Amino acid sequence: MSLAEDLFQRVRAGERAALGRAITLLESSRPQDRADARELLDRCMSGSGRSLRLGITGIPGVGKSTLIEALGMHLIGQGKRVAVLAVDPSSTRSGGSILGDKTRMERLSQHPDAFIRPSPTAGTLGGVARRTREAIVLCEAAGYDRVLIETVGVGQSELDVDRMTDLNVVLMLAGAGDELQGIKRGIMEAADLIVITKAAATGEARAQEARRDLKNAIALLPVRDNGRHPEVLLTDARTGQGIPELAERIGELHTSALALGTLERRRQEQGLFWLHQALDEGLRQRFSADPRVQAAREGLEQAVRAGLKSPFQAADELLDLFRTDGAPLP
Amino acid sequence: MSLAEDLFQRVRAGERAALGRAITLLESSRPQDRADARELLDRCMSGSGRSLRLGITGIPGVGKSTLIEALGMHLIGQGKRVAVLAVDPSSTRSGGSILGDKTRMERLSQHPDAFIRPSPTAGTLGGVARRTREAIVLCEAAGYDRVLIETVGVGQSELDVDRMTDLNVVLMLAGAGDELQGIKRGIMEAADLIVITKAAATGEARAQEARRDLKNAIALLPVRDNGRHPEVLLTDARTGQGIPELAERIGELHTSALALGTLERRRQEQGLFWLHQALDEGLRQRFSADPRVQAAREGLEQAVRAGLKSPFQAADELLDLFRTDGAPLP
Repeated sequence: MSLAEDLFQRVRAGERAALGRAITLLESSRPQDRADARELLDRCMSGSGRSLRLGITGIPGVGKSTLIEALGMHLIGQGKRVAVLAVDPSSTRSGGSILGDKTRMERLSQHPDAFIRPSPTAGTLGGVARRTREAIVLCEAAGYDRVLIETVGVGQSELDVDRMTDLNVVLMLAGAGDELQGIKRGIMEAADLIVITKAAATGEARAQEARRDLKNAIALLPVRDNGRHPEVLLTDARTGQGIPELAERIGELHTSALALGTLERRRQEQGLFWLHQALDEGLRQRFSADPRVQAAREGLEQAVRAGLKSPFQAADELLDLFRTDGAPLP
Repeated sequence: MSLAEDLFQRVRAGERAALGRAITLLESSRPQDRADARELLDRCMSGSGRSLRLGITGIPGVGKSTLIEALGMHLIGQGKRVAVLAVDPSSTRSGGSILGDKTRMERLSQHPDAFIRPSPTAGTLGGVARRTREAIVLCEAAGYDRVLIETVGVGQSELDVDRMTDLNVVLMLAGAGDELQGIKRGIMEAADLIVITKAAATGEARAQEARRDLKNAIALLPVRDNGRHPEVLLTDARTGQGIPELAERIGELHTSALALGTLERRRQEQGLFWLHQALDEGLRQRFSADPRVQAAREGLEQAVRAGLKSPFQAADELLDLFRTDGAPLP
C-alpha cells in the first residue's frame, strides 16, 4: 500500500494524528512529498464538500479563540464534528503555536470530535491559500462537518477568507472607536453575520449601542446573496451569552444557502477563481524561472526604463525566449 | 532599402501621409507587417520621448474636439507641432471616422503643423493600449512635440490615459449635475488640470459656481506629484476664453515636471507597467492557444466546478501540459 493510500485510510477512519500528518504532507515542498500529497488529495476529493465551511474573522484581541472554543463545544453538543484551521499570513509563530492554540482552546482541543490545526509558518501568499483550501478537503474526508477557518482579516485580497468559505462571521469589539476596527472593507462586505464579542464585559448598554451603530453602518453596504444585510449579534463567550443564538443563525443561513443553491454556486465560482489564480501565478513563476528569460530580462527592463525599447516589443522578445518548443505563435 | 527603412526616412522628414501609413502598419496583424512594424519601431525609439504627451479626457458632448482645435491652433501659433491621437475602445466608428474627426477639427486638420489620427476600430484592450503607445513614438519621431491623446475616460483601467501621458487634462461641463459626470474616479485622481468647457454658453455666474463646487470636491482627492491639487480653469473654446491660460498652465506644469524629474520617473514607471501587463497578457494568450492545454482545459474546469478536483492540482496539470520543452520545473 502506498503512503498516500495508507494515510487516506487512516484519515477516513478518523485518526486525528493521521489527519495532522496528511496536512503536514500538503505543506511540504519536497518532490516526493508533493507526489504523495497529490495522490492523497485525489483520493480525498471525491468525499469532500460535505461540510459547512465557516470563516471566523477578527483582529487580534477580539476574542476569536474564546468564541471558537464556545461555539465549537456548542456544535459538538449538537452532534457535529468540528475542525479549526488558522490562516495567518503575517504570523511569526513557529512550532510553539500548536501549544499556543491548544492552550487557548483547552476544552475543544481535548475533545475527540474536534481537530485544531494552527497556522503554518508563512510561505508565499498563493501557498497559504492553497494549503488552507486543500486542508479543508482533508478535514472533510476525515468526517468533520463543520470546518472553521480563523483569520485576522487584514491580509492580501488573495487570502480573503471569503474565497474559501460558505459563510463568514466577522467579530468586533463593542466601543473600540472606529466601527471597522482595521478589518478590510471587502471582508465586511462579505460578512454573513457580525458578532460583537465580550458583551458582558463591556456592559449591556454599551454593547447594545455598538450594535445599533454597526447596524446603521452596515445598511450602507451591499446586500448578501439572500437579499439581506448581515445580522449583528451580541455574544460573550465566557458567560455563553449569545452562543446558542449564533449557532442557530449559522444553521439557518446554511440551510437557506443549500435550498437556494447559492452555496453550490458560490463553491463553483470559488473553484474557478482559484484555478485562474493558480494558472496566472504558475505561468509567472515558470516564466520567471526560465534561465533564458532570466538572462535577458534585466537588460530589456533597463532598455524600457531608458525609453530605448517599446515595452510591448520587450515583452514579445522575452515571451519568444520562453516559448522554445517550436509551437507557432497565436 | 527595406519598407521599414523607407517609411522611417519619410516619417522623419515630416511626411504626414507616411506617418499615417506607419501607424496603419502598427495596427496590422499580418505576420510580414508585424515584422516590418517591429523594425520601424526599433528605428523610431531612439528619437522618441521628446514630446509632451497630454491626455485630454471627457465624456461625449463635453466639447473635446472644439477644445483640441482651439488649444492645438494656439500651440501651433507658439511654434509647436501638434499630433492628436484618439483612444476610444468603445468606438463603433469605422473608416468614416477620419472624415468625422477632420470635420470636427477643421482648421487644425488642414494645418501643415498638425497631424490628426482617429481611433482605430476596436481590437483587444491590450491592443488598443499598445497601438496608442506605439503611435506616440512614431509621432515623436516625426517631430511632433505636443502629442494630445483624446479619450472618453470611461474604459477599463488598462486603458487609463494616465498610464500613457505626462499630464492629464479632464474636461467637464458646468452644472451638469453630478460633479463627476461619469468620469472614473481614478481618472479624476490623475487629473493635473480640470477644465470647465462651454463657460460662455453656460453663463459666467453658473460656470464660476461650478468651478467652486469642483474645487471643493477636488480637495478630497490625493495631491499630485507636485504636492498640489489640480487647478480648475474656465474655458470656452468657441470664444477662445481661457485657452491661452490653459496653454500657459500646461507649459508651466511641463517645465516643473521636467525640472523636478517627475516626468522622467513617471515614464520609467509607465514603461515597466506596460511591460508587465504585456507579459501577463502574452503568457495567458500563448497558454490558452496551446492545443494540449485547449484539449484538457474544459474537462478540468468541469472537474473543479463539480468539486472533484482541487483547483490547484488542475492548474498544475494544465501548466505541465504547456511546458513541453523539458526544462525542469521551478
